[in-house]
Amino acid sequence: MGTQSKVVRAVRGGAVSGALGLIAAGLLLAVSGERVAAQDWVQSPWGADDELGAANLMTPERVKLAAELVTEGKVYSLGMIVGPDTPAFPPRSLSLTVLQPGQNGNSGLGNNNFTYNDDIFMGWLGIGPQIDGLGHAGVDHVYYGGRTYGDFAPASGLTELGLEKLPGLVGRGVLLDMAAYYGTEMVEEGTAYTKEDIQAAAEAQGVELREGDVVLFNSNWMDLLDGDAPDPQRFGAKEPGVGVSGAEYLAEIGVMAVGADTWGMEVVPAETEGDAFRAHQILQPEHGIYILENMDTRALADDGVHEFLFVLGQARLQGAVQMIINPIAIR
Amino acid sequence: MGTQSKVVRAVRGGAVSGALGLIAAGLLLAVSGERVAAQDWVQSPWGADDELGAANLMTPERVKLAAELVTEGKVYSLGMIVGPDTPAFPPRSLSLTVLQPGQNGNSGLGNNNFTYNDDIFMGWLGIGPQIDGLGHAGVDHVYYGGRTYGDFAPASGLTELGLEKLPGLVGRGVLLDMAAYYGTEMVEEGTAYTKEDIQAAAEAQGVELREGDVVLFNSNWMDLLDGDAPDPQRFGAKEPGVGVSGAEYLAEIGVMAVGADTWGMEVVPAETEGDAFRAHQILQPEHGIYILENMDTRALADDGVHEFLFVLGQARLQGAVQMIINPIAIR
Amino acid sequence: MGTQSKVVRAVRGGAVSGALGLIAAGLLLAVSGERVAAQDWVQSPWGADDELGAANLMTPERVKLAAELVTEGKVYSLGMIVGPDTPAFPPRSLSLTVLQPGQNGNSGLGNNNFTYNDDIFMGWLGIGPQIDGLGHAGVDHVYYGGRTYGDFAPASGLTELGLEKLPGLVGRGVLLDMAAYYGTEMVEEGTAYTKEDIQAAAEAQGVELREGDVVLFNSNWMDLLDGDAPDPQRFGAKEPGVGVSGAEYLAEIGVMAVGADTWGMEVVPAETEGDAFRAHQILQPEHGIYILENMDTRALADDGVHEFLFVLGQARLQGAVQMIINPIAIR
Amino acid sequence: MGTQSKVVRAVRGGAVSGALGLIAAGLLLAVSGERVAAQDWVQSPWGADDELGAANLMTPERVKLAAELVTEGKVYSLGMIVGPDTPAFPPRSLSLTVLQPGQNGNSGLGNNNFTYNDDIFMGWLGIGPQIDGLGHAGVDHVYYGGRTYGDFAPASGLTELGLEKLPGLVGRGVLLDMAAYYGTEMVEEGTAYTKEDIQAAAEAQGVELREGDVVLFNSNWMDLLDGDAPDPQRFGAKEPGVGVSGAEYLAEIGVMAVGADTWGMEVVPAETEGDAFRAHQILQPEHGIYILENMDTRALADDGVHEFLFVLGQARLQGAVQMIINPIAIR
Repeated sequence: MGTQSKVVRAVRGGAVSGALGLIAAGLLLAVSGERVAAQDWVQSPWGADDELGAANLMTPERVKLAAELVTEGKVYSLGMIVGPDTPAFPPRSLSLTVLQPGQNGNSGLGNNNFTYNDDIFMGWLGIGPQIDGLGHAGVDHVYYGGRTYGDFAPASGLTELGLEKLPGLVGRGVLLDMAAYYGTEMVEEGTAYTKEDIQAAAEAQGVELREGDVVLFNSNWMDLLDGDAPDPQRFGAKEPGVGVSGAEYLAEIGVMAVGADTWGMEVVPAETEGDAFRAHQILQPEHGIYILENMDTRALADDGVHEFLFVLGQARLQGAVQMIINPIAIR
Repeated sequence: MGTQSKVVRAVRGGAVSGALGLIAAGLLLAVSGERVAAQDWVQSPWGADDELGAANLMTPERVKLAAELVTEGKVYSLGMIVGPDTPAFPPRSLSLTVLQPGQNGNSGLGNNNFTYNDDIFMGWLGIGPQIDGLGHAGVDHVYYGGRTYGDFAPASGLTELGLEKLPGLVGRGVLLDMAAYYGTEMVEEGTAYTKEDIQAAAEAQGVELREGDVVLFNSNWMDLLDGDAPDPQRFGAKEPGVGVSGAEYLAEIGVMAVGADTWGMEVVPAETEGDAFRAHQILQPEHGIYILENMDTRALADDGVHEFLFVLGQARLQGAVQMIINPIAIR
Repeated sequence: MGTQSKVVRAVRGGAVSGALGLIAAGLLLAVSGERVAAQDWVQSPWGADDELGAANLMTPERVKLAAELVTEGKVYSLGMIVGPDTPAFPPRSLSLTVLQPGQNGNSGLGNNNFTYNDDIFMGWLGIGPQIDGLGHAGVDHVYYGGRTYGDFAPASGLTELGLEKLPGLVGRGVLLDMAAYYGTEMVEEGTAYTKEDIQAAAEAQGVELREGDVVLFNSNWMDLLDGDAPDPQRFGAKEPGVGVSGAEYLAEIGVMAVGADTWGMEVVPAETEGDAFRAHQILQPEHGIYILENMDTRALADDGVHEFLFVLGQARLQGAVQMIINPIAIR
Repeated sequence: MGTQSKVVRAVRGGAVSGALGLIAAGLLLAVSGERVAAQDWVQSPWGADDELGAANLMTPERVKLAAELVTEGKVYSLGMIVGPDTPAFPPRSLSLTVLQPGQNGNSGLGNNNFTYNDDIFMGWLGIGPQIDGLGHAGVDHVYYGGRTYGDFAPASGLTELGLEKLPGLVGRGVLLDMAAYYGTEMVEEGTAYTKEDIQAAAEAQGVELREGDVVLFNSNWMDLLDGDAPDPQRFGAKEPGVGVSGAEYLAEIGVMAVGADTWGMEVVPAETEGDAFRAHQILQPEHGIYILENMDTRALADDGVHEFLFVLGQARLQGAVQMIINPIAIR
């Protein structure tokens, strides 16, 4: 990691803290500013400073065409319900607390007795239905656009590629029902969706994949959480999902986002022993494509829907890597 | 507070904690189960057990009509960027931390060197662009549908009216540009949008308010945060907004949600001295209408847009009262 | 609760937030300032403004005498280890995260390669070994010194009685081994330590209770957590502990703190059906005595120690109600 | 970083999560188990598996002798009050929230109306008065006993060297008043306490440094926080403190802990340009000596106290690196 010989520390808190000595000590050593250039993939097609990646494909033309897919006005909520018991990638956890500031032993604020509940969240943002922003996945500390870790990822929040930069994702949603394609109730763990599988499923289901699409894969894997025989242990241990050739194919088409109804979108165990989340790398740092996990696609699949208007407005939290989401599909 | 003679404590944590003595002590005193019935407003038109309120108005017909408002494919992100410096209702605060589990002094997971950033959120959910779920605002500890505080709001999360129940809000969005209506750059604090104002603004701007709409008010108040002369102190001290007759009028029409580009949606100071957030009470507990705060409506106003497709998919966090959101407007 | 007709909201955050409208709205209604005076107990013997309660008994004379109890130099750590699995009063929970800011893919700060681990805590402070500050327990929203809830307990932290006011607790520690007194391996749940029991145990164990003491009770209840047959469910469901006459007796003697090796110090279920934590009320609001819970007293009991130097230095977190602690006993 | 070729990820959460695919994927690559052996310092004098370091010096003999230093019974609280405004090493921050579960609009639990306040802490443990456990400071990802980062520091908490292992620190406390030694009201930033300074100050103040001591340095630096002319910016920008030869001298003597009334204990800027916290490395990974920061030593200095009984009982939070503390000095 020669280009990151020293780390730069982002400093928050300003006047009071005075950076507690780091500035004084001359330790805020400059990062070179040169991004890793050895690999071709670090050259974003949208320019060296681009922070949006495939969200650049969200053109008015595509949005307008996607809106025309609404023929029935039926709304699908793709975000599963998330709580402290939702299986999460270790050691992620979350906790919610409801409280009522200043309202004990009284009737509330004002003559009209205004009372209210508030809530506090403590936990990780990569739990349950989530978007992986472009700052999430990297190759040996190198991220989208060739940014090295030291360039943009201090503990105080991403200074580049944070999810506050993303206005949202709106476009044509495509559902490939892999359970139907494989002719099974639920796709087995370890099943890799290859390029050939994706092509064949699309053809069988009469839908074409296009540049700028949000492509979702349905495996009915969530039946392991809320089906007749829940097995959250099995849910989290492995999963079916996008394979390496599948990810490369989706990147070649130029989709905007790839989602699935599993915790990690891609096949686990990996097709090649010793690999770890290789599809994430193909999609995110190498092609700027967003990843959506734990998308509950079952209602779409049950209705035989393969094209729809996809609308995601994730909270724009400054410096955030991931976010708990609830994309809306409308047909 | 005779109707809530004793509190029931929701117990979380299960097997390990054994409720730490409360069950054993016989202290889980039963709540009567009878909801407050003295006031007419506690009778929800959607039934005694309804938890969705005006979201029941989200019918396929209305959604389909709303989608037809998309004529240009232009996307507006209504959620302002939110961070630790965003003005918040005291003592709400938030903090974000980015971290990279297990990735120091090594090249990541697997032969393919998978590295990744994760993040932790600590703070209140009622900060920045937010939805007030129906469990937020009450009258003397009584909430939507006549639920008393003790019925549904333990510290471990709302057992009813939690935002996980809401699939999202999709419908016809209407923008009333109050700055344009009043002929000013920015509406002054303390300006109450009365029934007459709302009617006149709608007429002047050629838009009709209908049942099931999401009605947003633009005042350009956010210029106080990011305009030429930022004044976050003034931003948070008072605000223009919906007045009492305005709220009653919107409830009478039967809108689904009311939003504004201010921190509290309604006028502050109140029209009647000594009142506190009376419009919240009219909309939420009395009519089941959702409230959206800190909506950045300026781009819509600048484009002269008054009708659009509104899509909100808030994270479905179990038991949550409020949520940081980013609704999408498409025209 | 007539004396608390309206609540005062403490406002934190200052310049930026501008209190978001509350000040402007004139809603910071003044609390009367009059403290509840109906009951005798609200008159603290240490004056109306006292915030230390029985810690006023920590005189140099007593401390010096206590230090003379150190005859062997043996140190006992009374704080049990606490983590996410520690049984906690619902819905309390905690989480710890270790991270290494700015240290991925590099060798650390400076020429000397300084690397470091940091950690984040998210959770409740009333878990595991804990001190209940004088702001913890009350009678119908009235607390030590007659302070009503609205006087001092905003969500932003206690403005009076916070644990930052307490310098620590140093004095003569006394252990009463109730398991030995009852002649049992472990005292059963529901066993109330009455005045007579306490007197008899002290006499049998040859130790006198004095004003200013820190009195600890050993029941071996923690064997349910780490003994041969762990039963955390039973640990948390009920407990042996101080009864009403016992608490009154300890208050009459004028002890400084009362602790036990159980989650709640006092007997559960209560001696009188329908009572809830009555001993807490006798000790805290009515007499200003500190409560220490989940104290691991077994090593002291095993060694037959009944008198020792007790030293507690709790973190002085501004506005805190409780604190996870680790008092030190030295004999 | 050849010795740490791959990371092992500690997995928390157990049955439910199923480790979300990592185990299945065979990615829990084994760490070699061989500790870094190239440098001499990694050989702990207390054995290869030792996790206590210099706390091994806390013998009954030393404790007993220390207790004999109590001649007046005067108690000093060394932990400064800590809150959200306490200057902290970026990006560390903290927040406290007080709440009253289940107590709105009612009179509390049971016939005796038990009401109570609880509190939640969100933030970093390395703020204000703090102990650096032996897992805090390292040299290029190598820590006390030659443990590499991958051996013991997963995000879910330290698996070795966590502060739950430390029972506390009790011993002879020694105060060196460096402000008096230098003849100044407050020692200037950048002033390094060298071996010669430490020897001379001890001699001038009539106190001998011994093996097992807890040595505290007073500079009156905290006057910058609460003195007549507060300057928190200056407080946090630099600091006087222990220099390299000073740290080596203290290690040579074999002290148990080194503390100071500054945020970082050691001199900033460093004596050698480009160095970062070198004294931390000498004390912690190389000699197993504990570090105490932000100790308010002024009252001891004002009283001319140079020897005392030092008692620290830090909360024993599983896997914790640092902890907010309040050591007690008694003379």
